[in-house]
Amino acid sequence: MDIRQDAQIIISESIKAVLPDAAVRKALTKRSITKNAYVVAIGKAAWRMASSAQQALGDALVSGVVITKYEHSEGAIPRMEIIEAGHPIPDENGILGTRKALDLVSGLTSDDTVIFLISGGGSALFELPLPGVSLQDIAGVTRQLLCCGANIVEINTVRKHLSAVKGGRFAQRCAPACVLSIVLSDVLGDSLDSIASGPAYPDASTCGDVMQILGKYNLTLPEHLRHALLQETPKHLDNAETEITGNVAEICSAAMICAENLGYTPLLLTTTLDCEARGAGECLAAIAREIKRSGKPIPAPCAIILGGETIVRVIGSGKGGRNQELALASAKGIDGLDNVVIFSVGSDGTDGPTDAAGGMVTGDYAGRCRDAGLSIDAYLHDNNAYELLKRTDGLIITGATGTNVNDLSVILCG
Amino acid sequence: MDIRQDAQIIISESIKAVLPDAAVRKALTKRSITKNAYVVAIGKAAWRMASSAQQALGDALVSGVVITKYEHSEGAIPRMEIIEAGHPIPDENGILGTRKALDLVSGLTSDDTVIFLISGGGSALFELPLPGVSLQDIAGVTRQLLCCGANIVEINTVRKHLSAVKGGRFAQRCAPACVLSIVLSDVLGDSLDSIASGPAYPDASTCGDVMQILGKYNLTLPEHLRHALLQETPKHLDNAETEITGNVAEICSAAMICAENLGYTPLLLTTTLDCEARGAGECLAAIAREIKRSGKPIPAPCAIILGGETIVRVIGSGKGGRNQELALASAKGIDGLDNVVIFSVGSDGTDGPTDAAGGMVTGDYAGRCRDAGLSIDAYLHDNNAYELLKRTDGLIITGATGTNVNDLSVILCG
Repeated sequence: MDIRQDAQIIISESIKAVLPDAAVRKALTKRSITKNAYVVAIGKAAWRMASSAQQALGDALVSGVVITKYEHSEGAIPRMEIIEAGHPIPDENGILGTRKALDLVSGLTSDDTVIFLISGGGSALFELPLPGVSLQDIAGVTRQLLCCGANIVEINTVRKHLSAVKGGRFAQRCAPACVLSIVLSDVLGDSLDSIASGPAYPDASTCGDVMQILGKYNLTLPEHLRHALLQETPKHLDNAETEITGNVAEICSAAMICAENLGYTPLLLTTTLDCEARGAGECLAAIAREIKRSGKPIPAPCAIILGGETIVRVIGSGKGGRNQELALASAKGIDGLDNVVIFSVGSDGTDGPTDAAGGMVTGDYAGRCRDAGLSIDAYLHDNNAYELLKRTDGLIITGATGTNVNDLSVILCG
Repeated sequence: MDIRQDAQIIISESIKAVLPDAAVRKALTKRSITKNAYVVAIGKAAWRMASSAQQALGDALVSGVVITKYEHSEGAIPRMEIIEAGHPIPDENGILGTRKALDLVSGLTSDDTVIFLISGGGSALFELPLPGVSLQDIAGVTRQLLCCGANIVEINTVRKHLSAVKGGRFAQRCAPACVLSIVLSDVLGDSLDSIASGPAYPDASTCGDVMQILGKYNLTLPEHLRHALLQETPKHLDNAETEITGNVAEICSAAMICAENLGYTPLLLTTTLDCEARGAGECLAAIAREIKRSGKPIPAPCAIILGGETIVRVIGSGKGGRNQELALASAKGIDGLDNVVIFSVGSDGTDGPTDAAGGMVTGDYAGRCRDAGLSIDAYLHDNNAYELLKRTDGLIITGATGTNVNDLSVILCG
């Protein structure tokens, strides 16, 4: 039994289980939309969701706009315009795409339906600042919040109040047409006003919440932004309906099934892991040690499964992502253990600003680093997990997967 | 069922199970030492261990020296001198006590036996600097390492090389008498050269290791200290024998048994938790959420048990300890959950420089803080868990317990 190979199988099978194709087709077919359908697809999985929708809608599709991350388009889709744009920092192409989407939905009647396909990354990709606010303003605030260690919910709360399309404002623009949102969720707990910052969902967050977040991280904004943040988002929407078709709980279930098929007893610990990546990695290592020491929480062969989205505290200037940092942070804690793998992988195939989906380490990893004169601590301190994992055969590379339901972290003990 | 009351029962029963009395008596009785016994007891549990030894040894006891933390003596013990001293920062009383211990064991013969009773806190309490090194030197280095977030193993590695009694050097001073060490372990994994910095155990760490730790945290030491650090510690000892009588695995087992008796299915996750306290708390909250959401890893009523010693990254100027910080850091993550308690407690009854043993929060805790206008984030940011928990009925107070086998962290779900 090659445990690294088993890990690779779990990664690919789990991601395969949450690809959006079948789910989108099912959601559309059961509603039998026969005419006047307009598609707006946003997020890292937008291309694949839009392609499935086009096939399911057939002649009912009038036209569509797809906004996805650079290099995430897989080619032309009939009657759809595809725009690639910046993520995680929004750019002018995102604005251009968003304007095209607003053009598409303006002037619709109550006989029309907007099929709004949402996946992770939508917050950055679907963006038009409020009048008087620039993209640089929003990018700057986002960057500041990321650097403070703010979580995704907090970042989106602030961002949606600076936006002309988020926090339910896009659905307002679609009226009197109805909006059917089909969601591939990358927000823990599936809070619908948080996913892609909820362009077609009533906003639960208020201007007061925004002020509290800014206070928490000691951020002071210029006057024109503080002014824009005083405009409240819609709290009720009559023309919007939402269906969730995939989320982190599903990828965890798939990982459990796959692990069990490979002979590992699965144990799910959580689907809402949201602590710092380093702490999570060290925690997983401590559990792996216990499995080896006492056969608890369950005896090997076993797979401990966690889903979620950790955060990275940026203190260095290196390259990495939360999954790579989690995996690397676990390496010293399993030093010398036989037949143990810890991996963490982003289901979208893109962990941070890198070409890797995540990281994987084994019990001999720390020793290999020592032998090569490479200090795990030094790389972690510089937030440079990518470079070390790359030099030591620790990266998980999948390419863009076409889905995005957050991250999967696993301890595999043989 | 009052879940907070159940938590209190688990705390007191678990600590009771690792009190040193019976264990010390058993270790001594099986060796039938009938004469010429000298006792040196160090650590936070020294008084109780020494008292048990005195009763077990009877007339075989010649005399003894007990060095414990201030306010940890419970009165006179026949034929023993008791010295209270500084912890976690060593002070002159610790040096005085250590000199008395060295006087006690100097000039012994091979007919004599030194009963060396070691418990947590021994590193700080049993200290005599090498010639040319001052106590202030050691205190300063210790403080610097604590502030950098160095773990206890790293701190002790440096400290033992500056000491005239640690790293096996005390056993050298006892020769030709034999040293029987009886250990209540507060070092994860029970590495014998780490417990109390191993005064009677061959030292596995080298001068090279010390240099590596100093480099890792960018510490530059004055010339006379760097010179002292070049003297190597003993790597072999013929006159020393060691027995471990209690450790963190035992307190975890006791917690599992007690929880089960109260009707909670127990699940042990680890006995070597060593990540940052905040990350650990957030991780526990994520697991608690999953138990409530899906009944995984096990359905409620259940108790998730972890043992270990987390670390605190000091960035603020407040008052707290690792257990209080862990518990407080979990509070927001279980916000609104019914019938959930998360607690973390130091088995010695002293968490950091406070009079509390740890902290305990429930699902309504974050709401109570909000209602009272108290920001959990702000208190955490200032490392001020003690003050907030004190104001909100979240402290665990046990007083000095007489034992010290590290920390117990528990999720209790009703």
